[in-house]
Amino acid sequence: MGIKAAVAGASGYAGGEVLRILAGHPEFEIGTLTAGSSAGTLMGAHQPHLRLLADRVLAETTPEELAGHDVVFLALPHGRSGPLAERLGRDVLVVDCGADFRLADAADWTEFYGSPHAGTWPYGLPELPGQREALAGATRIAVPGCYPTAVTLALYPAFLAGLVEPDVVVVAASGTSGAGRALKPHLLGSEVMGSVAAYGVGGVHRHTPEMIQNLSGVAGEPVTVSFTPTLAPMSRGILATCTARTRPGVTAETLRDAYGLAYDGEPFVGLLPEGQWPATSMTLGANTALVQVAHDERAGRAVVVVAIDNLTKGTGGGAVQSANLALGLPEELGLTTIGVSP
Amino acid sequence: MGIKAAVAGASGYAGGEVLRILAGHPEFEIGTLTAGSSAGTLMGAHQPHLRLLADRVLAETTPEELAGHDVVFLALPHGRSGPLAERLGRDVLVVDCGADFRLADAADWTEFYGSPHAGTWPYGLPELPGQREALAGATRIAVPGCYPTAVTLALYPAFLAGLVEPDVVVVAASGTSGAGRALKPHLLGSEVMGSVAAYGVGGVHRHTPEMIQNLSGVAGEPVTVSFTPTLAPMSRGILATCTARTRPGVTAETLRDAYGLAYDGEPFVGLLPEGQWPATSMTLGANTALVQVAHDERAGRAVVVVAIDNLTKGTGGGAVQSANLALGLPEELGLTTIGVSP
Amino acid sequence: MGIKAAVAGASGYAGGEVLRILAGHPEFEIGTLTAGSSAGTLMGAHQPHLRLLADRVLAETTPEELAGHDVVFLALPHGRSGPLAERLGRDVLVVDCGADFRLADAADWTEFYGSPHAGTWPYGLPELPGQREALAGATRIAVPGCYPTAVTLALYPAFLAGLVEPDVVVVAASGTSGAGRALKPHLLGSEVMGSVAAYGVGGVHRHTPEMIQNLSGVAGEPVTVSFTPTLAPMSRGILATCTARTRPGVTAETLRDAYGLAYDGEPFVGLLPEGQWPATSMTLGANTALVQVAHDERAGRAVVVVAIDNLTKGTGGGAVQSANLALGLPEELGLTTIGVSP
Amino acid sequence: MGIKAAVAGASGYAGGEVLRILAGHPEFEIGTLTAGSSAGTLMGAHQPHLRLLADRVLAETTPEELAGHDVVFLALPHGRSGPLAERLGRDVLVVDCGADFRLADAADWTEFYGSPHAGTWPYGLPELPGQREALAGATRIAVPGCYPTAVTLALYPAFLAGLVEPDVVVVAASGTSGAGRALKPHLLGSEVMGSVAAYGVGGVHRHTPEMIQNLSGVAGEPVTVSFTPTLAPMSRGILATCTARTRPGVTAETLRDAYGLAYDGEPFVGLLPEGQWPATSMTLGANTALVQVAHDERAGRAVVVVAIDNLTKGTGGGAVQSANLALGLPEELGLTTIGVSP
Repeated sequence: MGIKAAVAGASGYAGGEVLRILAGHPEFEIGTLTAGSSAGTLMGAHQPHLRLLADRVLAETTPEELAGHDVVFLALPHGRSGPLAERLGRDVLVVDCGADFRLADAADWTEFYGSPHAGTWPYGLPELPGQREALAGATRIAVPGCYPTAVTLALYPAFLAGLVEPDVVVVAASGTSGAGRALKPHLLGSEVMGSVAAYGVGGVHRHTPEMIQNLSGVAGEPVTVSFTPTLAPMSRGILATCTARTRPGVTAETLRDAYGLAYDGEPFVGLLPEGQWPATSMTLGANTALVQVAHDERAGRAVVVVAIDNLTKGTGGGAVQSANLALGLPEELGLTTIGVSP
Repeated sequence: MGIKAAVAGASGYAGGEVLRILAGHPEFEIGTLTAGSSAGTLMGAHQPHLRLLADRVLAETTPEELAGHDVVFLALPHGRSGPLAERLGRDVLVVDCGADFRLADAADWTEFYGSPHAGTWPYGLPELPGQREALAGATRIAVPGCYPTAVTLALYPAFLAGLVEPDVVVVAASGTSGAGRALKPHLLGSEVMGSVAAYGVGGVHRHTPEMIQNLSGVAGEPVTVSFTPTLAPMSRGILATCTARTRPGVTAETLRDAYGLAYDGEPFVGLLPEGQWPATSMTLGANTALVQVAHDERAGRAVVVVAIDNLTKGTGGGAVQSANLALGLPEELGLTTIGVSP
Repeated sequence: MGIKAAVAGASGYAGGEVLRILAGHPEFEIGTLTAGSSAGTLMGAHQPHLRLLADRVLAETTPEELAGHDVVFLALPHGRSGPLAERLGRDVLVVDCGADFRLADAADWTEFYGSPHAGTWPYGLPELPGQREALAGATRIAVPGCYPTAVTLALYPAFLAGLVEPDVVVVAASGTSGAGRALKPHLLGSEVMGSVAAYGVGGVHRHTPEMIQNLSGVAGEPVTVSFTPTLAPMSRGILATCTARTRPGVTAETLRDAYGLAYDGEPFVGLLPEGQWPATSMTLGANTALVQVAHDERAGRAVVVVAIDNLTKGTGGGAVQSANLALGLPEELGLTTIGVSP
Repeated sequence: MGIKAAVAGASGYAGGEVLRILAGHPEFEIGTLTAGSSAGTLMGAHQPHLRLLADRVLAETTPEELAGHDVVFLALPHGRSGPLAERLGRDVLVVDCGADFRLADAADWTEFYGSPHAGTWPYGLPELPGQREALAGATRIAVPGCYPTAVTLALYPAFLAGLVEPDVVVVAASGTSGAGRALKPHLLGSEVMGSVAAYGVGGVHRHTPEMIQNLSGVAGEPVTVSFTPTLAPMSRGILATCTARTRPGVTAETLRDAYGLAYDGEPFVGLLPEGQWPATSMTLGANTALVQVAHDERAGRAVVVVAIDNLTKGTGGGAVQSANLALGLPEELGLTTIGVSP
């Protein structure tokens, strides 16, 4: 018998990705699947790529339906996980793919999300210094946002080594699945194909305080982040370009060494060979973050580019990676570094 | 009889776009079309969207073939325009879509292009202060690069008004047509679809010194530019995100006012209404640059996003706009602000 | 003063395309723009690519708002044009981009559209034998559906010349704009990018009886049509593959001659040179249908492939082409055969 | 120690897909990787999504380099497998992803491929009646072409049950990876994005005789196939629409029953629930063929639509499925029915 896992929000993109990974995981058994307005319908109508689950009926997202599982993955709209989690057993591992328990600062939470602060759970980014230990044996996990996953992995080595100024500019392109399955005109295929568009510009995107929290934590001082997200004509993937002024004496070699050291032994984060730059296609469906760094001497800046699959390493894969740690399983179990390409 | 125009490099994307616009221009008559390795073949094999020209035979790109025209548009690989232009009459208007005559600094040219510096021609960006006057009556025009067009239009108002520090970060996404019709593996459809990729990172892209030249000229002091280009899965379009620290006292209103003032009366550059952010689809096939600006108070930065069609305003449309000025025609003749969308 | 045109349904894709073309037409003046649920909002929020109309406020779609124009273009959901048109003056030219007045057979209409049959108007496909004459001076025009436009243009020459059996198979790929701006999950960018999907299979697509009507009319006998539409990951374009068994004695030359003859002098329909096959990109934004025909001797079939832009020749361009004829203007006025490519 | 597998042609799309699957297969060990002009370079330069193999050096494609393996997968240009296979041991399992050994009719081979006929190997489509048995213990396997895989799976049940006439029309859309990594202008991203194009029309596509061979074999009589391939703007996937006239008495139920029966127990082929039609995204990266069938009574035709991933079930996955059978492993080992979506 495997570890029994329920997924709340199984009809959405995040829930579907958690299930895609669980279905290939040797230790998990897929239990109850729940949904909001799609409760009562068949999974096959929403996630036809998950053939094995096509005949499953979606239950209502209630504590009762989610009871009796070893692990509950929550893939719900922001603000829904808090109240629900209170009614799930303390011995059950609850992995929240939403934002509810990511931010330590209640004022930041309220400013960016507009609802009462639910609290903070262990943050599911094992690559952050000390974080693997924090996740071992945890019964609650806050899965990072997709953009913060990419940006934090791209920049923490530079801050850890003290190589850059605490004033960061990030511009990231995301596939449309990052916006979920919401029926909004600007997400229609006709609108997004053949077009790159900016949104959430000027420091208003909800993932900004999460990046600031992560990078300030590593830097040991407040870091400012200018973050501009853009929507690219692809379903999956994030490519984030991150830059900060380098401190005196920093060279291309210093930078490269710091990244090599930080990522050494990391199963899911890799520094590309010199001269090769990340493309999101390298990571499609894989739990991988691929990074490259350059030193622009003329501009006095480190430029770090990272590619991830926003749904895999950025959501469902990251969730399972942290769940593995919490459950005492090998961190890499059921996860792949092999992308689907071309 | 119209103004007789030849196009050298008519089988490529830039040449094709010049011809698409000339074909709808009331004053131009399309004369000789030339090509390199495609000389002797029919236009219809290369540019089937230009139905009217399908039966034209491509001539060799030689001064003799290009003689006898009022205007010659050059859409050639970098380094080819210089030697050719020397053998075209001084009274002929020569409009170079290549880079050969864009950079004033010979050392920059040699560092980034690796061939002897050909010189400098009047720079075909009429929106730059004083540039309309410089183009009136010109017989030589250097059409700006596509990225420099976007970035210069996005940032010159802030520098003109002295609102930002001379240290700029630009991250831009471009459609693949910006790379031309070169047969390179990373430009294959299988590689680019579903993927955003970085390239030319760390200050090495050839358009960087051109941006520095333009912005420093407006700022009246040296401007550093950290420029990162990315390739997006679309044929056309550039979306550039440009940011710089704001000077003390600058507010969202100051910024918006400066942009409103700078673009006032500009036929092809527009500031979007507050709350609306540029998407490249808004400009497809149009000679338009659409801009939005925000002030990120927390990060202390102005963020300016601009969308253009890299082939239209970024190449062929910009070329015709400047040619109109040089020939004493109305600047807007034969050019549209209406994009093809969705 | 130009011919004053109103557009009902100006916030949708069909209405937007009519306006894109009217904006570049030398004889039309754009009057009132109306919408349904978007009434009261600015055009710029819906059609940001139509810069010149960005500040126009959308009115309600009522006879009163549409009064006082020379031409009214209707781009409304099926079933809405009938009641509205009754309340528009008989001297006003009403061009319906919807389906309400396309089908002569009331039973077909009711079976496929499920509402009372509104009647039949002159059919806006000037290329059909005799149809130019029927449209001259008309005050009511039914614009053909996008698929029927493509398929009829592809097959009428073969039927006119009696070269094929009256049993046709058509499989067509369409861009997503053909489905309009409806907020449906399967039209989200995340769903359509990277995927081709079938829909409306088995003879149930609403455009099927319209194809049968057109082809039977030319053939002079009942034609059966097996029509399968598919949705392709692009915003615009239809590529239809049409095949029928050839009659005894028909050869590749017979076929090619028939098509050459039928299209001779047609401004907007072209037979490609032998060996070149249509791609939708050749027609993007153009009012062109490009056709190629082959004879598969082994299978005993003519295979005809046609490409159009579903919004241009398939909707807005076709509408203006017929309106030109009805108003006594040159048929080609304001329309282009030049596509936007790549 | 696992089963040692070499891959010849490891730098191409087919070879890369074989390796993607082998890397996740519990019984295979990846041995020598070879290439043509890329010999001597690193795998990471060609297949950066296969992180585990990034540091492998590509060897020359010679019998010597391929010696010493239990299985050799050939992913070579057509015509290359024959001579090479002769020099590989008879006890080694050779799986040819090319066309060399697919066609029994030497005249067909020569007509369509233009080189000497190499012979015929057991055909790697286990779903064909009797074919599982033929593959058990085989030491040579001819992997079917991607289009024939899709079309044969879509139509064999109808022929097996005698429900349709032996005159088939197929129109299929394929992603660009089906054309391989060849540097051809029409495969450039700028050309394929936003466009569907026909090619190989009129019975000239090389996969046509393979379809005829397969379907005639099941039908027990000669079947004619009119096959039109189109190129769609996506990297992966084939959606094939297949239609044939139904025989008297056939109903929607007869058809559905025949397909239910034929696919019953098939691990990798599935009939979708009524009302749901295949999309290629449902199969991305999965070894699945998803099928739906309708009866168009008016047109008297069965319409069958099938979706596969051309690289997985259509190439690399199909190759491993057949290799599993040949080696006496469970047929499903290392293969997934779960697609990557959205």
